[in-house]
Amino acid sequence: MPELRRDPIVGRWVIISTERGGRPQDVSMPSAPLPSASMCPFCPGQERLTPKEILAYRPHASEPDSPNWTVRVIPNKFPALHVEGDMGREGLGLYDRMNGIGAHEVIIETPNHKEHLADLPANRVEDVLWAYRDRILDLKKDLRLRYILIFKNQGATAGATLEHSHSQLIALPVVPTSVLEEIDGCRQHFQQKERCIYCDILRQESTEGTRVVLENPEFVCLTPYAPRFPFEMWILPKRHAGYFEECQRTQFEFLAPMLGEALRRMDTVLARPAYNFILHSSPLHEKTGDYYHWHIEIIPKLTQVAGFEWGTGFYINPVSPEEAAKALRDAEI
Amino acid sequence: MPELRRDPIVGRWVIISTERGGRPQDVSMPSAPLPSASMCPFCPGQERLTPKEILAYRPHASEPDSPNWTVRVIPNKFPALHVEGDMGREGLGLYDRMNGIGAHEVIIETPNHKEHLADLPANRVEDVLWAYRDRILDLKKDLRLRYILIFKNQGATAGATLEHSHSQLIALPVVPTSVLEEIDGCRQHFQQKERCIYCDILRQESTEGTRVVLENPEFVCLTPYAPRFPFEMWILPKRHAGYFEECQRTQFEFLAPMLGEALRRMDTVLARPAYNFILHSSPLHEKTGDYYHWHIEIIPKLTQVAGFEWGTGFYINPVSPEEAAKALRDAEI
Repeated sequence: MPELRRDPIVGRWVIISTERGGRPQDVSMPSAPLPSASMCPFCPGQERLTPKEILAYRPHASEPDSPNWTVRVIPNKFPALHVEGDMGREGLGLYDRMNGIGAHEVIIETPNHKEHLADLPANRVEDVLWAYRDRILDLKKDLRLRYILIFKNQGATAGATLEHSHSQLIALPVVPTSVLEEIDGCRQHFQQKERCIYCDILRQESTEGTRVVLENPEFVCLTPYAPRFPFEMWILPKRHAGYFEECQRTQFEFLAPMLGEALRRMDTVLARPAYNFILHSSPLHEKTGDYYHWHIEIIPKLTQVAGFEWGTGFYINPVSPEEAAKALRDAEI
Repeated sequence: MPELRRDPIVGRWVIISTERGGRPQDVSMPSAPLPSASMCPFCPGQERLTPKEILAYRPHASEPDSPNWTVRVIPNKFPALHVEGDMGREGLGLYDRMNGIGAHEVIIETPNHKEHLADLPANRVEDVLWAYRDRILDLKKDLRLRYILIFKNQGATAGATLEHSHSQLIALPVVPTSVLEEIDGCRQHFQQKERCIYCDILRQESTEGTRVVLENPEFVCLTPYAPRFPFEMWILPKRHAGYFEECQRTQFEFLAPMLGEALRRMDTVLARPAYNFILHSSPLHEKTGDYYHWHIEIIPKLTQVAGFEWGTGFYINPVSPEEAAKALRDAEI
């Protein structure tokens, strides 16, 4: 059973998940090359290689765990958290722990091994967003779960271990530190001003214009004022909303093409980099609706600038967001 | 002039330092191979290739910027911050900025191009510690500076751009978020219990023993209870102390061999990995002495496990600290 442990100083929870087996030092071995299409467990026809599917969109009715799907959601074969078991909350002197209760799922975004999320037409990106939403709404019924993290690692240097385009969902019994920090910041701003800080940012950015990459009736894609990473982008809904899963259908119709275009512009400017994206949405059962504003963060992984940053919380960024936004806007896609 | 910008939501300051030139997208190009000894600006005899030295330890008196040093401190040729200029603090709507005032120095740890810090005898590691201390005490006189970050990137995947063993010092006009979070956690614990939380951790760890890697009369090296990264290690002084630079000579005499041995054990178990270490010490002019406890964090950079973590503040660690500590203790060095 994986274990959640809390750092007693800063309150950060980490998952200690040692079930992949092998000697501890083997984590340090260079990754094997990502498997090619012939042995890819995410390709149609190889459904037996994965755990049983949780959800699949099939344009023409077909059996579960058979081909002919466009999006398929499966449990992670090496889950960082398990659904079964009790919480096992416990104090050990100064320390706090609990069992690694939660869910860890994989959203296979396309049946085509070589296709990236950026390559999909808007209606198929929309399907991926619907899959995120459907899974969040389903998992939200389990009251032990407090937060759902949806993220994508594209490329080996961003942490992907399989080439076939996919995102991941981790449902947690705690709220991650980064989300708590954002929520605290939002709450403070709201208490002072009775306004959502992200709404204020959207107004200021839209007036200034220099950091806006894309805009449509429902969403804005911008490079943030104080980005940690070169070419970091945020996509924010214009309408104030705390919960991604409460998006209306028309919003997904505007989000999907913007997400695709943002990724294609990034791919053009940065020569198809490895990247992460992370969906920041409200904790499942806490009332943050007035002051928190869901959004997506896209972070290209440009290896030589990532250094000690993840160990210090301190960032040196060699590209201003104004330059990055201009290069992204000017890209010919 | 580099610029410090504050994220209005979480309060994190980042340095936007665009002076290296070139097109913004060039940050994404793969790093050139690290230069070999023949053209290394950190090697003896090539002192003219660096900015003028700030400090050097020379066993036999010799001219500045000439060979025959054991440790040499120089300004970074591409500094993330500049010493000259005014602070230029300014609000821009929601945002806060200031000029990138500070210092960015390089501590060349050995004249020998091929020697790692781990390879040095204890007395020469001690020299490196003295160089850190001397630079901190000197820079502390500049009251604009509020924090000094000392860190080491070893290996290209940890962010090193030159092969020759060196550490870096960045003096900042703000305190980094990660340090503020630690200080807040320590303050809360102290307010409740009138004890330093790191001292409490040392007592509990020394009783339990499973996470202790090394111990001597003045220091303990341990794997923390809730580590973010596999084989993360902390070195803590047993005597409560907030400021690294106030170490006594006898303490450095015990710290140097422990740091060397911790690195050699890590090198043995993980086959000489890239790594970062970060010195966590108190802010320069704030009174944190009763509740903050300086320490060193060592983080091997094991690429396939670093993924989306630096974008989320959320960590999955496939190696328990108990396993890691045992492997490190058992290593034959």
